[in-house]
Amino acid sequence: MEKELEGSAHHIDHVLRVLKNARLIADSEKGVDMDFLEPAALLHDVARAKEDADASGQIDHAVLGAEMAANILYEMGLVRDRIEKIAHCILTHRFRSDNKPCSIEEKILFDADKLDLTGAIGIARTFMIAGQFKQSIMDCVEIETYQKENLRGGNLSGRIIDKTRHSPLIEFRTKICKFGDILFTEKGRSMAKQRIALMDNFFSALNSEIKAQTED
Amino acid sequence: MEKELEGSAHHIDHVLRVLKNARLIADSEKGVDMDFLEPAALLHDVARAKEDADASGQIDHAVLGAEMAANILYEMGLVRDRIEKIAHCILTHRFRSDNKPCSIEEKILFDADKLDLTGAIGIARTFMIAGQFKQSIMDCVEIETYQKENLRGGNLSGRIIDKTRHSPLIEFRTKICKFGDILFTEKGRSMAKQRIALMDNFFSALNSEIKAQTED
Repeated sequence: MEKELEGSAHHIDHVLRVLKNARLIADSEKGVDMDFLEPAALLHDVARAKEDADASGQIDHAVLGAEMAANILYEMGLVRDRIEKIAHCILTHRFRSDNKPCSIEEKILFDADKLDLTGAIGIARTFMIAGQFKQSIMDCVEIETYQKENLRGGNLSGRIIDKTRHSPLIEFRTKICKFGDILFTEKGRSMAKQRIALMDNFFSALNSEIKAQTED
Repeated sequence: MEKELEGSAHHIDHVLRVLKNARLIADSEKGVDMDFLEPAALLHDVARAKEDADASGQIDHAVLGAEMAANILYEMGLVRDRIEKIAHCILTHRFRSDNKPCSIEEKILFDADKLDLTGAIGIARTFMIAGQFKQSIMDCVEIETYQKENLRGGNLSGRIIDKTRHSPLIEFRTKICKFGDILFTEKGRSMAKQRIALMDNFFSALNSEIKAQTED
């Protein structure tokens, strides 16, 4: 896993925080099978570096990651039924995807991963991604234009076509700020709400500083 | 200029904010020659992308930038005396350098540039740099070890030898947190102090979140 994750915003540290988030959320839920959840958390971003390096925009790290994880688990000798369930957790962990989480383990992995985009960690990670893809410090493009160009069928499940035109503020306004309402577990939503308030304050401060320094 | 600055943390937006900071500080100082300060601000990072792309670590963007700026200004037909003063402003703008600012224009450019590493902008930019150089979200290495390995003669003027082992927290603790005391102008120091308080709060929040998510 560690070998596959070269980009720092999806570094092995991210994987370990997602694992910890998943355990925290699982503690507040009933009937969670940790034998599916934990390996899925550890392997959920196994294809992330491949998606990031893919200039064609064809690779979806959830789809490819589910396949890669299945191969790894097969080589480790796991039984087929178990492999399929873990791979399906990985397939459904992505925000911008038509494969939605159904089982409690899938819902927990989804929420655990999204929480690592909130709070001070979320600020740090979205700007690390901005640096990696040479995005602008604020908007690269108006949010309305961005949505028109990038979103399939007018909803938020479209892939990001041009990562250089994305930005942390667009990521926050079109996605992260909604996590307090749309995450699947109560624990996930309550953690998200608290951390989104911190991000709101940060983006206001950033906006004020940039305005003060660019206006004449 | 814009063509030369491909890395987003030293994007043309950074240059324009530094120009604005320089004007703000100049308003609080006497006898500032804006005919030196403004072109120096616009050209101060002209060699930054070349330093970033240089794997050998030999290029110092202040030294090379002064040369590149001198060539650009010569081609524009400026007189030699004027070119030398502007180039010297660029030579002395770097924090980790033995070429210290002397004239008021040099001091203002130094402070104006450093201010763009403070506050919410500073958080955004240090993490963008972290993403660009694949640094860790927190420490890559203990600060004491880092200082021993990276600093010439035990002071803070050494070059950063391995950018992948640097991190925003190291940048904050060994450099940015001191700006409230060491900047040259009173206006620069007072702006820095306010913005460093915001960074302090941010790094505390980041530390708490990471601790809560990695401890068992």
